[in-house]
Amino acid sequence: MKPRHLKKLTKKTGMPPGAVCYIGEQRDFIPNLNLIEYSPDFFEQKPIKRISEVDVAGRNHVHWLNVEGIHDTQLIEQIGEHFQLHPLILEDIVNTSQRPKLEEYDNCVFITLKSLVFNEKEKRVTPEQISIVLFNNLVITFQEQIGDTLSEVLERIKLSKFKIRGKGTDYLVYALIDLIVDKYYFSIEALGSQLELLEDEVFNNPSPVSLQKIQSVKHELLEVRRSVYPLREVINRFQKDDLDFINENNLKYFNDVYDHTIKIIDTIETYRELNAGLKDIYLSSISLKMNQIMQVLTIVGAIFIPITFLAGVYGMNFDYMPELHWKYSYPVFWLIILLIIGALITFFRRKKWL
Amino acid sequence: MKPRHLKKLTKKTGMPPGAVCYIGEQRDFIPNLNLIEYSPDFFEQKPIKRISEVDVAGRNHVHWLNVEGIHDTQLIEQIGEHFQLHPLILEDIVNTSQRPKLEEYDNCVFITLKSLVFNEKEKRVTPEQISIVLFNNLVITFQEQIGDTLSEVLERIKLSKFKIRGKGTDYLVYALIDLIVDKYYFSIEALGSQLELLEDEVFNNPSPVSLQKIQSVKHELLEVRRSVYPLREVINRFQKDDLDFINENNLKYFNDVYDHTIKIIDTIETYRELNAGLKDIYLSSISLKMNQIMQVLTIVGAIFIPITFLAGVYGMNFDYMPELHWKYSYPVFWLIILLIIGALITFFRRKKWL
Amino acid sequence: MKPRHLKKLTKKTGMPPGAVCYIGEQRDFIPNLNLIEYSPDFFEQKPIKRISEVDVAGRNHVHWLNVEGIHDTQLIEQIGEHFQLHPLILEDIVNTSQRPKLEEYDNCVFITLKSLVFNEKEKRVTPEQISIVLFNNLVITFQEQIGDTLSEVLERIKLSKFKIRGKGTDYLVYALIDLIVDKYYFSIEALGSQLELLEDEVFNNPSPVSLQKIQSVKHELLEVRRSVYPLREVINRFQKDDLDFINENNLKYFNDVYDHTIKIIDTIETYRELNAGLKDIYLSSISLKMNQIMQVLTIVGAIFIPITFLAGVYGMNFDYMPELHWKYSYPVFWLIILLIIGALITFFRRKKWL
Amino acid sequence: MKPRHLKKLTKKTGMPPGAVCYIGEQRDFIPNLNLIEYSPDFFEQKPIKRISEVDVAGRNHVHWLNVEGIHDTQLIEQIGEHFQLHPLILEDIVNTSQRPKLEEYDNCVFITLKSLVFNEKEKRVTPEQISIVLFNNLVITFQEQIGDTLSEVLERIKLSKFKIRGKGTDYLVYALIDLIVDKYYFSIEALGSQLELLEDEVFNNPSPVSLQKIQSVKHELLEVRRSVYPLREVINRFQKDDLDFINENNLKYFNDVYDHTIKIIDTIETYRELNAGLKDIYLSSISLKMNQIMQVLTIVGAIFIPITFLAGVYGMNFDYMPELHWKYSYPVFWLIILLIIGALITFFRRKKWL
Amino acid sequence: MKPRHLKKLTKKTGMPPGAVCYIGEQRDFIPNLNLIEYSPDFFEQKPIKRISEVDVAGRNHVHWLNVEGIHDTQLIEQIGEHFQLHPLILEDIVNTSQRPKLEEYDNCVFITLKSLVFNEKEKRVTPEQISIVLFNNLVITFQEQIGDTLSEVLERIKLSKFKIRGKGTDYLVYALIDLIVDKYYFSIEALGSQLELLEDEVFNNPSPVSLQKIQSVKHELLEVRRSVYPLREVINRFQKDDLDFINENNLKYFNDVYDHTIKIIDTIETYRELNAGLKDIYLSSISLKMNQIMQVLTIVGAIFIPITFLAGVYGMNFDYMPELHWKYSYPVFWLIILLIIGALITFFRRKKWL
Repeated sequence: MKPRHLKKLTKKTGMPPGAVCYIGEQRDFIPNLNLIEYSPDFFEQKPIKRISEVDVAGRNHVHWLNVEGIHDTQLIEQIGEHFQLHPLILEDIVNTSQRPKLEEYDNCVFITLKSLVFNEKEKRVTPEQISIVLFNNLVITFQEQIGDTLSEVLERIKLSKFKIRGKGTDYLVYALIDLIVDKYYFSIEALGSQLELLEDEVFNNPSPVSLQKIQSVKHELLEVRRSVYPLREVINRFQKDDLDFINENNLKYFNDVYDHTIKIIDTIETYRELNAGLKDIYLSSISLKMNQIMQVLTIVGAIFIPITFLAGVYGMNFDYMPELHWKYSYPVFWLIILLIIGALITFFRRKKWL
Repeated sequence: MKPRHLKKLTKKTGMPPGAVCYIGEQRDFIPNLNLIEYSPDFFEQKPIKRISEVDVAGRNHVHWLNVEGIHDTQLIEQIGEHFQLHPLILEDIVNTSQRPKLEEYDNCVFITLKSLVFNEKEKRVTPEQISIVLFNNLVITFQEQIGDTLSEVLERIKLSKFKIRGKGTDYLVYALIDLIVDKYYFSIEALGSQLELLEDEVFNNPSPVSLQKIQSVKHELLEVRRSVYPLREVINRFQKDDLDFINENNLKYFNDVYDHTIKIIDTIETYRELNAGLKDIYLSSISLKMNQIMQVLTIVGAIFIPITFLAGVYGMNFDYMPELHWKYSYPVFWLIILLIIGALITFFRRKKWL
Repeated sequence: MKPRHLKKLTKKTGMPPGAVCYIGEQRDFIPNLNLIEYSPDFFEQKPIKRISEVDVAGRNHVHWLNVEGIHDTQLIEQIGEHFQLHPLILEDIVNTSQRPKLEEYDNCVFITLKSLVFNEKEKRVTPEQISIVLFNNLVITFQEQIGDTLSEVLERIKLSKFKIRGKGTDYLVYALIDLIVDKYYFSIEALGSQLELLEDEVFNNPSPVSLQKIQSVKHELLEVRRSVYPLREVINRFQKDDLDFINENNLKYFNDVYDHTIKIIDTIETYRELNAGLKDIYLSSISLKMNQIMQVLTIVGAIFIPITFLAGVYGMNFDYMPELHWKYSYPVFWLIILLIIGALITFFRRKKWL
Repeated sequence: MKPRHLKKLTKKTGMPPGAVCYIGEQRDFIPNLNLIEYSPDFFEQKPIKRISEVDVAGRNHVHWLNVEGIHDTQLIEQIGEHFQLHPLILEDIVNTSQRPKLEEYDNCVFITLKSLVFNEKEKRVTPEQISIVLFNNLVITFQEQIGDTLSEVLERIKLSKFKIRGKGTDYLVYALIDLIVDKYYFSIEALGSQLELLEDEVFNNPSPVSLQKIQSVKHELLEVRRSVYPLREVINRFQKDDLDFINENNLKYFNDVYDHTIKIIDTIETYRELNAGLKDIYLSSISLKMNQIMQVLTIVGAIFIPITFLAGVYGMNFDYMPELHWKYSYPVFWLIILLIIGALITFFRRKKWL
Repeated sequence: MKPRHLKKLTKKTGMPPGAVCYIGEQRDFIPNLNLIEYSPDFFEQKPIKRISEVDVAGRNHVHWLNVEGIHDTQLIEQIGEHFQLHPLILEDIVNTSQRPKLEEYDNCVFITLKSLVFNEKEKRVTPEQISIVLFNNLVITFQEQIGDTLSEVLERIKLSKFKIRGKGTDYLVYALIDLIVDKYYFSIEALGSQLELLEDEVFNNPSPVSLQKIQSVKHELLEVRRSVYPLREVINRFQKDDLDFINENNLKYFNDVYDHTIKIIDTIETYRELNAGLKDIYLSSISLKMNQIMQVLTIVGAIFIPITFLAGVYGMNFDYMPELHWKYSYPVFWLIILLIIGALITFFRRKKWL
């Protein structure tokens, strides 16, 4: 259940729009800023101490400012001021419960999306918010944590052999989104494996815990879905809109990421159906188990209750009970008992209850 | 269930359209009128006694007439006359079961929406209808009750430091809607917490009351949904339409509120799914409990019914029952009983019923 | 179930289109025709004996010909001839199982819709078909029965104080539709009350009859829905289309009725969900009841079956049973019985089954 | 289940498109060809032996070639050649598992649809494929069987009094489609009656056969739906498209058939909902029956198990059991038994289990 | 469950776009290349050893390069280079978990789709990815395996009598897609037969295995659906778009395949509904069986428990029990027993439990 991101939002209610108010887990580290600058035959990466030192004008290179840590709202405001970002952008960057979206501004395009990490121990998907601001010769990325979420792209830039060095900021944005979307497969695969295990468990050894697991997988699938559905719309806007900062030759690439999100959505919907199916199977397994228990009780009861009555009859103390005095009464009694048992067992066999 | 707003509506059936007929709870207080006037360097707030004293022409300031209390239909009609409001607007203002909507008129834009308050005691969401009329230099707001629903915006206007002082009536409307939408989070958060508690309850200690709670959360989610879905359309019209009274530079802000409503709708739908899931879990918990009860009965029955038969046999009064006279019959009897019990327990253990 | 209107339809199969064939309940009365004529300063109402006397040309007044009773197909054909109505219009007027719709013809606009009456005794909604033909200076309405379905509008016309006297035929049509839609609230309210009662019943005293009531409410909600959904489309066409006979200034009013139908649809959908929820609650109440019954049986069984065995043991007739001859055996027996009972009750208490 | 039409289709897989391969039940009769020719003052109907004799040019009459029997693929190919039909048309005519559709060709419009017949004995709907080719002065219809499916239209043409004689081929096509759609009501009505009977059965006397009937009604409703949904699109294209062969004055008529299909679809959806509801009621009836059975067992068990224990106690053979020797023990025993029974019955009464 | 294609995808995460990385089952064989060249009066088929020998310029023939085996990524890259395919095309060809799609490039149209084979033994559908690149005078097809998936088209080309020899590359692509779609019927038919068998099984002899089969059919239907839904969109683009390489005269043919996909989708949805219905029937069969078992237990219990009590009463050892000493007590006892049994059986008969 845990309406995780909702609780935080109410903190912010009533604040003026554009207020830069960090909403997320408490974090202590000092944010990490890196400026990467490259062109087909140039590459430089340097840590940034003061935002005012950053100067992206002049040379015709691609610049990528990677900000790791968004809990220092003052820093975010300085960055906003330095690059003339609209207040609503700053508000969205630090609001970690933002829905993925794309906004076009006069001087830039703002994209915010979720990177998903599957936590193996807790069996739950934890989202990290990644915001991207796309200028003509600069891309700024904001991550919640210091980490290697985007490092594969950096590696590719470092090695000059890949196409990315010869392309502009739009291609860099594409590469980043493509990487994040690719990583969704890990979460989905993990949920898929859980479903597989659950299916085994439910068919072979269902317990109330299975049901909790099914509900938990449902939660996580809803979580992923909540990240991917709006992302699809975001990427679709790259395809459809005449965004100023996107080179028409690169549209094919966004097209490709779009296909990936569709595929992920397909898989999520399939998993949701299968998960719902598991619930039904679980419920029917329980019914089935009850059925078997009932059968045992019925068979034992139906056999012994009548013969117990018979034994009771010959335990009666009437003065005149001729059977009591016959010589072979006792063996005949046992014979009758065995006949009754045999008849009942045959009856149950025919009914397929035994 | 309580078709709250429906009952009232039938009162009004057959009345001519445009009839100003208050439909809502009986209220006694005298409505409260306040006129706020401001510009970047001016602020004045004064209570209004007679509507005829209000004059918004002349100075180039923003005016906000806040009407608290709509049960005095005469007053509403006077306001309508003074500002030349269309009869249908007046009808909608006092009809508190109105669906959120936006209507464009020649001289103004009319918006009606719901402010939601979550009543902690009754665990239910109670809506208050807020109507907003937007003119070029005047905004009129109508609330059902005297209260602080909109006070945060007033505070921001008072303090000159916020952007709102430098903007027009369209921004004021935005600020009001934004505030109301922000407050939805409280209701949703409250419902989310209830869901969390319910999930615990249903997994650990399900009772028929849980089911009533689940049905009640369903009611409340439907109630919120009924307010938010049409609201989304209302805000969408701000974005899409060429409304005369909206400055194009402020569209971004309405865009932002729109995102919030989408997010709220997302959450409501998620909660509805989880709530439906809880119902299934509840039903399965009941099945499970029954299962356990059946198991006890079965085990007790299956063990004792056969041995009771045996005891019955040796309580019979046949004259010739050789076992009765053997010396060790009684201890052997107990031995057999223990063997039977042991065998049955082993059988149940293997079946995992014990 | 009752596929009421379907049975009738098959009567008509194979007939040429435009055939005026009455499909509805057998009725005996003689249809009632009234011509109302009005302008801001004129009002006249007169019964019509022969349709040929009606002359609406000449004076610039609004005419309203109200026909009560459509089972006399000859009369309908005469009316059709006199006003040059298209054969398909006549066919639709007398076909009482018509779906609400709007058709534009060269000389008129034809609207057919359902007025709903909730029959308190049978707890079911019965629809009456109302057809409206809108000309430039004439409105013809056709009702199935003589009655006061449309009388509120007539009252408003009689009293000169209302706006309707100053408006044209389009406003009259609006007023009629508005009245009919307003009356829907009565049916919906009645179904809402039934739902409320059912909810109480299902929670407190569920019986198989409850389920039949739930199914019956489902029927009625489907019935209302079948009338309202197409009606929404009809009214929407007033808003959207450039219908020749509608004055643009009156569009606002149709807009308003449109909002009402949306609201009704919202409520119906809500009720359908709640009704479906009730079914689940009913089913779970039954499970619960069974649970409680099982518990009693289990507790009684689990307590008495073991001790009955013990009593059986000491009823055995073995020659050598030392306990039988001990002096305190009997009180000790009772002590053991009480201990067993105590232990089992404690066990059930802890399991929360008692 | 019976995937009737699918099995046949695989026969045809891998064949070149346009191959005229009959897919349907084996039939032996010789196809029946009739040419009807008419104008307002002319009517002629003659059987056709050789397709080459047919000549529709020359006189300005409407021609209708009615082909009964499509299993003779050679004949179909001859017809195709004579009238220059596109190969895909021929393929579709003989492929009886075709989905209803409309195709526009250079020289004609091709329509294929299903006529439904409800087989009372098997309680199932059997579709017959009707294909219609519309030329400027000729309509060709293809039916699977010799029969009177379209005879009502022929009757109307014969009698000169109906409008059809004065209209063109487009009106003839309309009349045919209208007839076929009208006949759908019979199937739907039959399914409706079945639903009614089922409802009674399920409420009063549910058995496993009821469930099979419910599933069977579901099959048939799906079957009808599969015919009607695409038909709606077909007729919609008459309304919307600028089909060359349709006179604008006759659009109204297609409009009317369109309304009928909508009505049929409405009814099907309603029936599907009610049928689904019946399944739930059936399941709950079963639960209920089980409930009642349990109650009997519980009441008998709960009453007799304790008193049997008491009887067992006084059947014990302890030497020292004072009660055994009191004079009034036996009547007191019965008194206690009656008290216990009375108390338990009161308890069950209060619980409403009796 | 088996998220078959997902596992493979994660291998590829983080790779630059356009990387040709084979994702699929390990395969060992050497890919097979064949070049077919034809015109109305020319046909040649030759195996290709080196891709550089292929020259499609010059003569005005249709060329078809069929590549069987895509696991040799080097070969794929050579082909890509030789025909100047976009890197994204190559990436998609070897990524066997691709969703069916159509991409338009400057020099060609790229189509990828799934051919489905139903594996009778495992009762599951296995997809093979077929990629098609359409140039002006050349079609390249890529299959995962050496096989006869496309051989029927080749046969038709070989025999000069079919239309295909006289048509261009667009018709060849149509013929290939048509063949693949036709083969879908086999899979669907197989699933249909399974459903038929399952229905029998579930009605007559339900077991937990039935439920597993139902879940398995659900899997396979989802699998087919995942292939067909996007395929429909692909074929739709042929109809709608102005694809450069498609002759307008051949649009009719794509239209026809489109109808087939719609029909397949219809059938899948029908099967999904029926399959879901089977689950309900299975669950109700289980309830029913339990019902019958309960009945036996109840009847046996309800009959014997009371009479056992009676037997117990007369086994008591009270000194003063007058009945014990009456002469006819014992036969009277049996008479009473028989009366009780008779009464109970009559009661159960009337309740229809027997």
